[in-house]
Amino acid sequence: MSILVVGSVAFDDVTSPSGSVKNILGGAATYFALAASYFTSVRVVGVVGDDFGSEQENVFRQHNIDIRGIERAKGKTFRWGGSYADNLNEAKTDYTDLNVFETFHPQIPREYEDTQFLFLANIQPTLQANVRRSMKDVRLTGCDTMNYWINRTRDELAETLKLVNVLLINDTEAKMLAHETNLPRAAQKVLAMGPQALVIKHGEYGATIFFREGAFGIGRHPFRAPSLPIEEVKDPTGAGDSFAGGFMGYLASQGEINREVLKRALFYGGVMGSFAVEQFGTERLQSLNREEIETRFQIFRELTHLE
Amino acid sequence: MSILVVGSVAFDDVTSPSGSVKNILGGAATYFALAASYFTSVRVVGVVGDDFGSEQENVFRQHNIDIRGIERAKGKTFRWGGSYADNLNEAKTDYTDLNVFETFHPQIPREYEDTQFLFLANIQPTLQANVRRSMKDVRLTGCDTMNYWINRTRDELAETLKLVNVLLINDTEAKMLAHETNLPRAAQKVLAMGPQALVIKHGEYGATIFFREGAFGIGRHPFRAPSLPIEEVKDPTGAGDSFAGGFMGYLASQGEINREVLKRALFYGGVMGSFAVEQFGTERLQSLNREEIETRFQIFRELTHLE
Repeated sequence: MSILVVGSVAFDDVTSPSGSVKNILGGAATYFALAASYFTSVRVVGVVGDDFGSEQENVFRQHNIDIRGIERAKGKTFRWGGSYADNLNEAKTDYTDLNVFETFHPQIPREYEDTQFLFLANIQPTLQANVRRSMKDVRLTGCDTMNYWINRTRDELAETLKLVNVLLINDTEAKMLAHETNLPRAAQKVLAMGPQALVIKHGEYGATIFFREGAFGIGRHPFRAPSLPIEEVKDPTGAGDSFAGGFMGYLASQGEINREVLKRALFYGGVMGSFAVEQFGTERLQSLNREEIETRFQIFRELTHLE
Repeated sequence: MSILVVGSVAFDDVTSPSGSVKNILGGAATYFALAASYFTSVRVVGVVGDDFGSEQENVFRQHNIDIRGIERAKGKTFRWGGSYADNLNEAKTDYTDLNVFETFHPQIPREYEDTQFLFLANIQPTLQANVRRSMKDVRLTGCDTMNYWINRTRDELAETLKLVNVLLINDTEAKMLAHETNLPRAAQKVLAMGPQALVIKHGEYGATIFFREGAFGIGRHPFRAPSLPIEEVKDPTGAGDSFAGGFMGYLASQGEINREVLKRALFYGGVMGSFAVEQFGTERLQSLNREEIETRFQIFRELTHLE
C-alpha cells in the first residue's frame, strides 16, 4: 500500500564531531520518504522554493517517491543549521529560516486521495489535524510532534491526537506531554489522549511501543526494539524521521496490522534510524538496498534474542 | 558452584517520591548476595559493627547465605543516607558514615578458599586486587567500581582490571573510565584495559554486554537485555548490585560459560534489578521465589523477541 508523508523538505547545514556539511537535502518528509521507500511506494506533500531543483528532485525520483504533492512556492526553501557536540543526542540549532514553510498549508492532490497509510511529520498540530480530516480512506495514521508544539499548542495537539493511531515521540517529549516523569506512566497518560499505540524513541537505547487496552485487537504488553551500538555516529539529524519511515513503511507494506507486524515494524524503524546516522544527511539512506536492510535486521535480532 | 561476594553490608536511610524508610539493611554485598541466592550458594566477606544483630543475620540465613566471612568489628556498621527526587536514576547522598568499613581489609576464611566464582563489589581497587590475588581456584571474577575510584585511584583500578573477567558498570562510569563519549568506543577502550567482557548497565533501558575479541571462545558481537518498564519504582538503591547478583549467580549456577549462558545471565541480571526497585531496600529480594523469577524472565523475553 502507498504511504503519504506530510512534512518539511529542507536544506541543512550540519556540524558534528565528524565534520561539517553545507546546503544538503534534509527535512523530516525527506528522511521519512527515503527510509519508507525501501518498503513501499511513497507520496510526499510539502513545499519548496525556487532553489529546489532537478538535483533534489532526482533524489526522490530515484527511489520512486511520488513528489507531485510537493508545492513550489515563490521564495526560498526552509533552511536549518544545527551543530552537535560530544553529546550527539542533542542538536544545537544555529538558525531556522522557515522561508516558504512559514505559510505552508498542506494540499492533498486528488491523485493521493486513496492513500491508506498517512504519516504526519512534525508540523503545527492543527495543520496535521486538517490533513487527517481531509483524507477519507486512511486506515492508519502515524504522527510526530515536538517540544515546541507540546508547550505552545497543547490544546490543538490534544485535538490532533484524537485522530491518530500511532504517535512516535522521544522520552523527553512523552514526559512533557504527560506531565509525568515515570516513562510507563507517561505512556499510559498519552495513550489516554487518543492514540492506540505510542512509540517512544530512546535514541541509542532503541524504542518501546506501548499499546492502549484493546488496540489493534492485541494485548497491551509493551514491546522493545534495540538500536545498534554504532562507533561513529556522523550525523544524528533525521534519525527519528528515518525511524518513522522504516516503522510506517513496513506497516504499509503488510496487509494486516497485528502484534507481530508491529513488533517487526519497530525493528525496521531502528534499522533505518541506525543507517541514517552513519553518514551526513540522507547520504546513507540514498544508497541502501533491501539486502543490507535485511542483514542489519538480523544483527538487531542477534543483538537481543536468546536461543 | 558457590559464589563469593566481597563488599559492603550497611544500614540505609532512603527517601524517594514513594516514601521514606530508616535503618534498613543495605549494602552492595547484601543486595548482591540476596539476588544471587536464588541461583546458587553464596558466601559473603564484609564487615559489620555491634549494631548488626540476629535480625540482620537471619535475612542472610533464610537464604542459605554463608556469612562466616562477615567480620564483626568494634563500632558501628557502615551507614548511608540517600534521597531520590523525580529523576530516580540519580541518588543524592545525604550522608555516608563509613564507621567500621573505613578500615575494612577483606580476609578470606579458609572455608572459602575453594570458591570458583568471585564478585568484587564496589570497594577500593587495591583491596579488590588483593582479594583476587589471594584466591587460587577462581575461574571467573566479576567486578564493580564507581566514579569515585575512577577519578581518584585510576592507576590502582587499572591494575585491578587486569585481574577481572567481567566488569559491570553504568554508562557514565564507562565513559569516564575510557575518556570517551561514544559508548561502543568506550567499551572497546575499557576491554583493552583487561576484562574479557564489559557489562554496561543503562538503568531503565537495560544493559549491553561487550566482548573482547576471542573472549570465552565466542565472537565479539555485543548482546543487549532489556529492563522492565515499571510504573512505580519505589527505591532504586541496590538495583545495580541486584543486577550483578542475578548475572553472576546465574553464571555460577551453570557448568560452562558460553555465549548463550552469558546472554541468559544478562537477562537474569535485568530480572533481579527489576524486582529490587519494586520495594524499599531488600524487601522484594527477600520474598521472591524461583517461579516468580522465571515468570519475569519470560516477560523480558516477550518484551524483546520476535516470533
